[in-house]
Amino acid sequence: MLSSAQSKYIRSLTQQKYRKQYNVFLAEGDKIAKEWLISAAKIQMIIATQDWADLNSLHIKAHPEAELCIATPQELEKVSALQTPHKAVLVANMPAESSLPGSGWCIAVAHLQDPGNMGSIIRIADWFGMSHVIASPDSVDFYNPKVVQAAMGGHLRVQLVSAELKEFITGTSLPVYAATLGGSSLYDVSGGKEGIILIGNESKGLPEELVALATYRVTIPRKGGAESLNAAVSAGIIAATLAGR
Amino acid sequence: MLSSAQSKYIRSLTQQKYRKQYNVFLAEGDKIAKEWLISAAKIQMIIATQDWADLNSLHIKAHPEAELCIATPQELEKVSALQTPHKAVLVANMPAESSLPGSGWCIAVAHLQDPGNMGSIIRIADWFGMSHVIASPDSVDFYNPKVVQAAMGGHLRVQLVSAELKEFITGTSLPVYAATLGGSSLYDVSGGKEGIILIGNESKGLPEELVALATYRVTIPRKGGAESLNAAVSAGIIAATLAGR
Repeated sequence: MLSSAQSKYIRSLTQQKYRKQYNVFLAEGDKIAKEWLISAAKIQMIIATQDWADLNSLHIKAHPEAELCIATPQELEKVSALQTPHKAVLVANMPAESSLPGSGWCIAVAHLQDPGNMGSIIRIADWFGMSHVIASPDSVDFYNPKVVQAAMGGHLRVQLVSAELKEFITGTSLPVYAATLGGSSLYDVSGGKEGIILIGNESKGLPEELVALATYRVTIPRKGGAESLNAAVSAGIIAATLAGR
Repeated sequence: MLSSAQSKYIRSLTQQKYRKQYNVFLAEGDKIAKEWLISAAKIQMIIATQDWADLNSLHIKAHPEAELCIATPQELEKVSALQTPHKAVLVANMPAESSLPGSGWCIAVAHLQDPGNMGSIIRIADWFGMSHVIASPDSVDFYNPKVVQAAMGGHLRVQLVSAELKEFITGTSLPVYAATLGGSSLYDVSGGKEGIILIGNESKGLPEELVALATYRVTIPRKGGAESLNAAVSAGIIAATLAGR
């Protein structure tokens, strides 16, 4: 059973200010909880139904640092930040802060707002073996529970850094590929071994001051009537074309 | 003011069975409502705040078939199917049923469940000038309000057909490119002028019986640790690579 203090604590972690205050975040769901337990991540609490805990007892034993709380499905529903609650929720320690990348491929996002898009972009970076996703400080929090869910374990392999993009881009020696409308055709730009793929806000795109600092302005050529593509889809197409081969 | 009968009717359209019964669907939000009003689509009702109706009076006048209902933001919030309610909601007539494509590029989805993914895939088809998106009948409804929102007007340009994919694929002369893990590298498969890009369910992928009928099995080569990519991101990468040039 979860005490009301425990419920309140877990529930508070759906808010960024409490995640920062306690330096932990939520990893929800069978698959994601298992990925975290298999990893070397430090876990503070494991909240799970009795049947889930029984099925995953070996994984749980590998984390003696974690407090195990058996909960009913109703209790889990109350603490879940997601629409469909799961059989297991972890409270995981935030990883140590990463530094900015100096080589290889990464994706940088400016003022990205949708948690599903952020999670998908971390998953894209993870798929293509990129070391980092960098987000401007006004983007949705990397540790928002919906971001964690959509990234499908990407948080365990991709370094996530919140940074002012203007400073990052000004200071880097990596080529910067800015996703814009009205740039060069993506198919005419050749990728290489490294670079920064720069993706903007869902409705406003990239700020002009960042585009002006980019090495290349790239556009996915349009053949039909849509005004734009979804931000994560654009990131995926650009990543696959420049960094996927 | 909205009468309670009107509110109840509009609210009922968040459910597929009522959309089917009345043969209409909801198009919500400033940008999407404008796109619909500018188009030749038939509109049954326009529910909007007074200020939105004033700003868009010319667009509204172009639809004398539509009943205009001025509503307060609170009334709009009550009838909205979306998390963030908007200043305008349209009740639009369903388009006539389309037939299956015989040429060109299209995307077919099997048992796709997430409305955001379905909307993104319609938007991808729209961007790359594809004529159709075909969905297995057990997929999320094309006219789910979240699908309409994520497709960003794609419903106005892309023909949407619900069909048994096994029959469609067996009967077509178009090459079928199935997105699977463990197929040929996407970069080694050459696209052409036409084909069907076949995308599976978010967690289970494509059913084996459909993969067996495909002309090509294509895989986006993985370089990192992620188990898979998001379904819409995969569709976008495959569409861009095969049909985007």
